[in-house]
Amino acid sequence: MAELDLAAIRTFLIEVAKEAGRMIVQASQSQLKTTAKANSKFSARVVFPGTDIVTETDKEVETFISQRLGEKYPSFEFLGEESHIAGQKIHEGVPTFVVDPIDGTSNLVHHLPDVCVSIGLVFGGRSIVGVVYNPFDDELWYGHRGGGAYTQKHGEPAQMLPLYAPPFEEAGAGVGRLTGACIGVDWGSDREGPEFELNLKVFTALARTQRTGGKFVNSLRCVGSAVSAICRTAAGQQDMFWECGCWAWDVAAAWCILSEAGGVIVDGGVPGNWDPAIDNRRYLAVRPAAAGQRQAIEEFWSVLGDDRSDYGPP
Amino acid sequence: MAELDLAAIRTFLIEVAKEAGRMIVQASQSQLKTTAKANSKFSARVVFPGTDIVTETDKEVETFISQRLGEKYPSFEFLGEESHIAGQKIHEGVPTFVVDPIDGTSNLVHHLPDVCVSIGLVFGGRSIVGVVYNPFDDELWYGHRGGGAYTQKHGEPAQMLPLYAPPFEEAGAGVGRLTGACIGVDWGSDREGPEFELNLKVFTALARTQRTGGKFVNSLRCVGSAVSAICRTAAGQQDMFWECGCWAWDVAAAWCILSEAGGVIVDGGVPGNWDPAIDNRRYLAVRPAAAGQRQAIEEFWSVLGDDRSDYGPP
Repeated sequence: MAELDLAAIRTFLIEVAKEAGRMIVQASQSQLKTTAKANSKFSARVVFPGTDIVTETDKEVETFISQRLGEKYPSFEFLGEESHIAGQKIHEGVPTFVVDPIDGTSNLVHHLPDVCVSIGLVFGGRSIVGVVYNPFDDELWYGHRGGGAYTQKHGEPAQMLPLYAPPFEEAGAGVGRLTGACIGVDWGSDREGPEFELNLKVFTALARTQRTGGKFVNSLRCVGSAVSAICRTAAGQQDMFWECGCWAWDVAAAWCILSEAGGVIVDGGVPGNWDPAIDNRRYLAVRPAAAGQRQAIEEFWSVLGDDRSDYGPP
Repeated sequence: MAELDLAAIRTFLIEVAKEAGRMIVQASQSQLKTTAKANSKFSARVVFPGTDIVTETDKEVETFISQRLGEKYPSFEFLGEESHIAGQKIHEGVPTFVVDPIDGTSNLVHHLPDVCVSIGLVFGGRSIVGVVYNPFDDELWYGHRGGGAYTQKHGEPAQMLPLYAPPFEEAGAGVGRLTGACIGVDWGSDREGPEFELNLKVFTALARTQRTGGKFVNSLRCVGSAVSAICRTAAGQQDMFWECGCWAWDVAAAWCILSEAGGVIVDGGVPGNWDPAIDNRRYLAVRPAAAGQRQAIEEFWSVLGDDRSDYGPP
C-alpha cells in the first residue's frame, strides 16, 4: 500500500462528516414538524421520534458515509456501528474506517444537542485520522497522526488542542491527583451483572469523600456521547473519561484527536495495560497535562482494587 | 405594594443577565490568556483558573447583579448564593430576587460551557419571573407568570416552551413510565452520610434493569448546572431532573420557566408533597406532558421506598 496522505484523508472526512451532520439535523427537524393528536393541550408541539425512526436515521446516515468513503477509498475496509457483524475484526494491515454515524442516539431521541458524527481511520492498530462533528452545535474536532489536533466552532478560526493542560498536581485542591478532577462517565445500556456492579463501585468511589474511602473528585459528568466526552478531554475541559462496555466506533475517531493533543487512552478495566487495542471495550481517556498524567492514571486504577472488568474484545 | 409589571421585570432581568454573562466570559478569557511556566511542554496553553479566582468572579458578578437590581427595584429583597447569610428566609410578602451569579462553577473552572446566570423573582412563595442565560452558548430561557416561557439561541427567533411534550406513556418502550426516560441528576458536593447513600440508591435504582429491581431508564445525565437541566426539562429535552441538597438559587429562576411551560417541581425526597417551597432543598422537576405526568412522578417516588431525604429548609 502506498503512503497514505493523512491530511487529505482528514480534509475529506471533515467534508463527509458535515454532510452527514446535515442529514441528521434535517431528520430531527422533520420529526419536530410532525403534528400529533389534535386533542392534546400541546397539539402542535407533541412530538416524539420513535426508536424505530431514530434507528432508521442511524442506518441511512451510516449507509451514506459508507458509500462516500468507499467511492473515494475503495481499498479501505469499513466498520460501522449499524452494519458490523458480531465478531468482525479490524485487520491491522488494511486501513479501516471506523464509524459511528450518530454517537449520542439517546440525546437525539430527546432533542438534546450532544450528538456527533464520528469517523476514524485505523491502521496498524492505531487511530491515525479522527473527525468528530456535532451538527447541532456546529462544533468540530479533528486531527491526524503527526498533524496535531484542532477544534472549530461556528466556523470561527480553528484552535489547536489542548486548550488547557495544567499539571494534575495543580488541578486538585486536596490530597491526590483526582481530587479537583472533572471525570466523564457513562451508565451505558448493560445495567445488570458483575460489570454493572463494578461500574457502580467505581462511580461511588470516585464521588465519595476521602474519609469514607473515596477520591472525592470535583465533578462527575455524563453527557451521553463518548466521542464528545473524549474530545472534551483532548481539549482539557475535563480530566478523564471512563467507560467500560462501549465499542471501537465509540472511541476510534476521538482517540487520534486525544493522542495528537497529548492525551492518552489506557485500559479502563485492567490496571497496568498502558497500550490497549482499539477494540478493547474498556477505556480510560486522560487529558494532556504538563505533569502528573501517569500518576493520575495509577490513582484511577487503584479505585478498581482487585476487581477487573472482563468485557472481552468483540 | 402596587401591581408588579412582570413583563417589564423580565425584560430588565434579561438585560442584566446578559451583562453578567459578558463579565463571566471576559473573566474566563482573561484566565485563558494567562501564561504559565515557560519550561512546560504546553507553556502557552497551560492555564488553570484556581478556585480562588473563580470564587472572586462569582462574588463580583453577584455584586454587579445585586447593584443593578437594587437601583431599579429598591424595595425588593435579594437572596444570592454568594452573599446569603445562613438561615436567611425568603419573606412571602416581599418580592425577592433569588440569584445564582454562576450556576455551574465547576464547569467554569474546567472551561466546560454549561454555565448559566440565573435570576428569579419570588413573591407569595412562588417563582413569578425567571431568566437563565448561558453566555458561552448564547442560550437564553425566560418566562413570567401568565406570560409563557421561551428559549432563544444565538439571537434567532424565540421559541415557545415546551418544544416537545409527548405523553409519558409514549416515551417509554417498556413497562412503566420511566423506562425510556432521560433523567438529569447531580452528584452534588455532600458525598458522605445518609443523604449521599440515598442519592446512590436512587441513581442505581433508576439505572438497573427491571428484573434486578430497577426502572431501567433510557439515560441518566449529569451536566453540572441545575438551572440548565431544569430549563432543558421545561423544553421537553429531558423528562426529569432530580436533586436533593441544592438551594433556592439553584432552582428559583428555572422553576417559573418550567411552570409556564407546563412542567412541575414536586418534592424530591418526600413522596406526596406536590407543592414544595422554593427553599425545600429536595426537588423533582418533571417536564410538560400531554399525559402521564402525575403517574410518572408517583413512579419516581416509588424508587425512594421507605427512605426519606431530610435536608431541612435553610
